[in-house]
Amino acid sequence: MTLSPTALSPTERSTPRRHRERARSDRAELHALLDTCLVCHLGLVVDGAPVVLPTGYGRDGDTLYLHGSSGAASLLTAAAGAPVCVTVTRMDGVVYARSVFSHSVNYASAVVHGVAHEVTDDRAKTDGLRVIVEHLAPGSWDHARQPTRRELAATRVLALPLAEASLKVRTGPPADDEPAVAAWAGVLPIIRGWGTPEPCPRLPAGTAVPPHVRDRSDLTPLP
Amino acid sequence: MTLSPTALSPTERSTPRRHRERARSDRAELHALLDTCLVCHLGLVVDGAPVVLPTGYGRDGDTLYLHGSSGAASLLTAAAGAPVCVTVTRMDGVVYARSVFSHSVNYASAVVHGVAHEVTDDRAKTDGLRVIVEHLAPGSWDHARQPTRRELAATRVLALPLAEASLKVRTGPPADDEPAVAAWAGVLPIIRGWGTPEPCPRLPAGTAVPPHVRDRSDLTPLP
Repeated sequence: MTLSPTALSPTERSTPRRHRERARSDRAELHALLDTCLVCHLGLVVDGAPVVLPTGYGRDGDTLYLHGSSGAASLLTAAAGAPVCVTVTRMDGVVYARSVFSHSVNYASAVVHGVAHEVTDDRAKTDGLRVIVEHLAPGSWDHARQPTRRELAATRVLALPLAEASLKVRTGPPADDEPAVAAWAGVLPIIRGWGTPEPCPRLPAGTAVPPHVRDRSDLTPLP
Repeated sequence: MTLSPTALSPTERSTPRRHRERARSDRAELHALLDTCLVCHLGLVVDGAPVVLPTGYGRDGDTLYLHGSSGAASLLTAAAGAPVCVTVTRMDGVVYARSVFSHSVNYASAVVHGVAHEVTDDRAKTDGLRVIVEHLAPGSWDHARQPTRRELAATRVLALPLAEASLKVRTGPPADDEPAVAAWAGVLPIIRGWGTPEPCPRLPAGTAVPPHVRDRSDLTPLP
């Protein structure tokens, strides 16, 4: 499957059927959402029933990397070729409307369908882990101790192509307009930001918080 | 199935196998997590493949209510008795460790397995909707215009028992301790809070923000 470098290429199941006006097809917007969230929800079918687990990830171009313990059943299932669905959601605000019915949320959500493959080559696996670590904690790959062979063996890395992906975004005020209803209407934004770093109690006294932690700025700045 | 009023009753698939030290069995803690988050990820099996969709919800005792448009395929599938998995995750912080391998996140996550049933009786359906609306926007049910019969008909409400549920929580500093590694270690907390209300442009000029919006305090207060 050849990916368009700029547009999402919808299939039937990746084409939103409800609230189509919220669908986006810009690949850069998909990338931006994935880069601004920290956790995905990985869906699998186990014994005919769905299982949804929160999972760390990272993105490199149009590849989504997932990782976990070599012993984790979910990643083993996915590595064996079971179809997966990876969903990433950012909640941006609660939409208060005149009617209860028109209450909503402002959000952005990406849904990726596909089959992941396990990355087994040591160099490629290390690259995938670096992408995941740098997504979770930018600057940590070079600052902290990098994986040993034993740690690498204890970790499973999967790669999922961003081929069959959809993106939905809701922004803006409530949609209803009922002048006869006196209710307040508008949006109450949700702010996400970084708090004050909490040093590990076992750190030597006086250890400074390094710039890559102190100045981290990839969430909405707090007021 | 009789629910313990205080403890979660694990089945095999709802018993965490990885990081068992993070498993919690206190039903009140499950309730608290569900009450403090705004979105769940609903997993279903469609044509043999997993589908994971962000969905609003509300909780009343040990019943989780989900809702959506009567035309939504996912809710129709669930209403027909397909097994579902509902996962709710709160991210609390990034855990920086001495080793890349020990990097982690502080989080709380609930996973609920089961079969949902559709709530069709008008009174019970209205009660379920009220629970969902009051979870999303406390105070809105009485403040805004309540659903008409037509709006009620356009909405599907599902009820899922909190019977087969598990809860995992990670808190605290990184677990590693490598004095020879000079890397900073600690936690960078994630703060979620409410921003400044943004009135709908179509509101009459000078409309005051009502207390249930202005003073909403169910997310972490911003510094």
